[in-house]
Amino acid sequence: MIRAEIIAIGSELLTPFRTDTNSLYLTRSLEENGIKVVAKTVIGDEIDHLVAAFANAFERADVIICSGGLGPTIDDLTRDALCEFLNIPMHLDPEILHQIEERFKFFGRKMPETNRKQAMVPEGATSLPNHHGSAPGIYLEARGKQIFLLPGPPNELDPMWQQYALPLLRKERPYQRKIFRIAMLPESQVDEMLKPVTDSLREVQYTILAAPTEIEVHLLAPESSADELISACAEVRSILGNWIYAEDLESLEAAVGKLLKQLRRKVAIAESCTGGLLAERITNVSGSSNYFEYGLVPYANEAKIKLLNVPAELMDAHGAVSEPVARAMAEGIRKIANADYGLSITGIAGPDGGSAEKPVGTVFIGLADAEQTVVKEYHFLGTRQRIRFSSTQAALNLLRMKLLA
Amino acid sequence: MIRAEIIAIGSELLTPFRTDTNSLYLTRSLEENGIKVVAKTVIGDEIDHLVAAFANAFERADVIICSGGLGPTIDDLTRDALCEFLNIPMHLDPEILHQIEERFKFFGRKMPETNRKQAMVPEGATSLPNHHGSAPGIYLEARGKQIFLLPGPPNELDPMWQQYALPLLRKERPYQRKIFRIAMLPESQVDEMLKPVTDSLREVQYTILAAPTEIEVHLLAPESSADELISACAEVRSILGNWIYAEDLESLEAAVGKLLKQLRRKVAIAESCTGGLLAERITNVSGSSNYFEYGLVPYANEAKIKLLNVPAELMDAHGAVSEPVARAMAEGIRKIANADYGLSITGIAGPDGGSAEKPVGTVFIGLADAEQTVVKEYHFLGTRQRIRFSSTQAALNLLRMKLLA
Repeated sequence: MIRAEIIAIGSELLTPFRTDTNSLYLTRSLEENGIKVVAKTVIGDEIDHLVAAFANAFERADVIICSGGLGPTIDDLTRDALCEFLNIPMHLDPEILHQIEERFKFFGRKMPETNRKQAMVPEGATSLPNHHGSAPGIYLEARGKQIFLLPGPPNELDPMWQQYALPLLRKERPYQRKIFRIAMLPESQVDEMLKPVTDSLREVQYTILAAPTEIEVHLLAPESSADELISACAEVRSILGNWIYAEDLESLEAAVGKLLKQLRRKVAIAESCTGGLLAERITNVSGSSNYFEYGLVPYANEAKIKLLNVPAELMDAHGAVSEPVARAMAEGIRKIANADYGLSITGIAGPDGGSAEKPVGTVFIGLADAEQTVVKEYHFLGTRQRIRFSSTQAALNLLRMKLLA
Repeated sequence: MIRAEIIAIGSELLTPFRTDTNSLYLTRSLEENGIKVVAKTVIGDEIDHLVAAFANAFERADVIICSGGLGPTIDDLTRDALCEFLNIPMHLDPEILHQIEERFKFFGRKMPETNRKQAMVPEGATSLPNHHGSAPGIYLEARGKQIFLLPGPPNELDPMWQQYALPLLRKERPYQRKIFRIAMLPESQVDEMLKPVTDSLREVQYTILAAPTEIEVHLLAPESSADELISACAEVRSILGNWIYAEDLESLEAAVGKLLKQLRRKVAIAESCTGGLLAERITNVSGSSNYFEYGLVPYANEAKIKLLNVPAELMDAHGAVSEPVARAMAEGIRKIANADYGLSITGIAGPDGGSAEKPVGTVFIGLADAEQTVVKEYHFLGTRQRIRFSSTQAALNLLRMKLLA
């Protein structure tokens, strides 16, 4: 097994305001090439810490990938630290210097003296071109390890990795990962349902990742266990059936969109407590204009009456958060938009507005089609954001199950 | 200076699907207590790597905070690794065992044998109660360091940290951080504008963090430089004026909401290419029902005509993405909702739908009040998500500037 360590360098990554996300991109790419990430380290711009980080990484990894610290300022010490650790010199590469100067010229500026530093290359290293910034990357083989120094900004790192670093990477026969995504079932239930499969796995590794109203089941297998993986996937599919909304990383809104497109159906939305989040998720899918045309956010009671023709008496009798109002909203928006489906959400997202009878987290979701209207009541826990998100999950999944019925 | 290292433990954090976010919460709290984070490490459930991580942390930090690896399974090795590194034994604490058993009883289950492990406490350590899960935390002083072992789930870690760990933490005289948030100005321009202040800083540290259409200026000062910090903040305010929408971490939508509430004004929204994101952001602020009642997402052209009375001829003559349509949408929604302000967005979020005349990223934003309607044209770069987000930033900031005028 080839083992990798990712080192993110930059003091801003040690503040409460930024976190390293480059490693997600890199880990995905490494995994596709059969390489396992065994550690991630985030350190600031201190030479001692950088040298120590290289020392650790050389102990436990075969591939070492650094991001950041390649800039022109005195704080940018990644190169220096690597050379100090390996005890090798650096030299100025006139070709790289020329490229950096040209880049500044192109933007109508003179290269500041400090940028000369970016043309310094450790002995034996190869420079990796940067088409989106001034800092070139560096590739070096030393002590049997592969070392990549990449720039910090993702829009520079990603293309450099793809175009120049990846072709140099020693690859293994890849692991294969299968992902199943499930909405609206609790983790413990999915885990229990899958026990007959997971208990009998040999080489395939099973992981379950849970977020509110969202479960991912991962099966990871070495190439040599492809058959076991295939049969495990078949069993997972037969147990979870329609609960699986996507394999791989497709979102719930994309899965719903795909079905609407296939069936040539249109949905219109009237959402209150989610404040536009359901429409936002649906329209985040490119091509959603094929099946989504009308969205309303009737946040005030008056707006529900005026925009959706919800009878004022209904609101008075049952309150805006109620089964009859969810029903009237779903039917109202379906009619106005002349859509196949009308989908409605009304609820209490909190933190205020709850009562003993209708606590925060009470949400009614309505779904109207030509034949009938279904309304479901939910009780979600957590923060305002979480209740809003859970409500949109429930609405999307309700529509999805209807489309599959 | 007291230095801290944060170690996140768990194999899922080394996949492309999860990243450590506990450290953001912890870093914020440490900073408020004058403690600087010098390194963050993420490692999997391998005893050798855990022991090595402790060895590194003991080298460079005074406070060591671990999250994760306190569960009942064979993979949960944080305790074992700490004891191995320090060469100290563990013992079973009958009181903790009893609490864990009671917790299971409360949920109507018998404690599995494996959970006994969670009652094991390193010699000399104090146990930290967990009111939200079965894994207690552990606090130990050794070799002059403070070591905290905390559970991984944020909803367990955060309250344990606040209630039990923080009171044990050795504190320094705190650094003070002032944050200024600015929307819709480029980073280089803000940096240039602030040069007269930042060039003359002595003890105060200046950082500028940029995301698309969003800038944060941070000034960090030791307590001894409080005067310098105050005068630097005053200069920043006088230079940037109304461009500063918030000090500290208040969101743009919250800043706009505060102004609307103060002035007792209401806004209604008609948004097309942002698909509900603007309404979603506005209603994400608790109490937004005071100033937001009506939101429309007229995604289709027909919906713009039917819901907003945008004249069909206007759409035919200029296209849905145009100055006159943005104007008609803003005026239409203002009238329907009987609001003080009508705010509209129409544009091309991509990746499809662009043309030579109106490329992807072309966005028109309209703002109507009783006196007049203003329409601004923008050209945003990037992905669909980024163009949508930038559009809502522009709309919110346009309204904010109007409210301040």
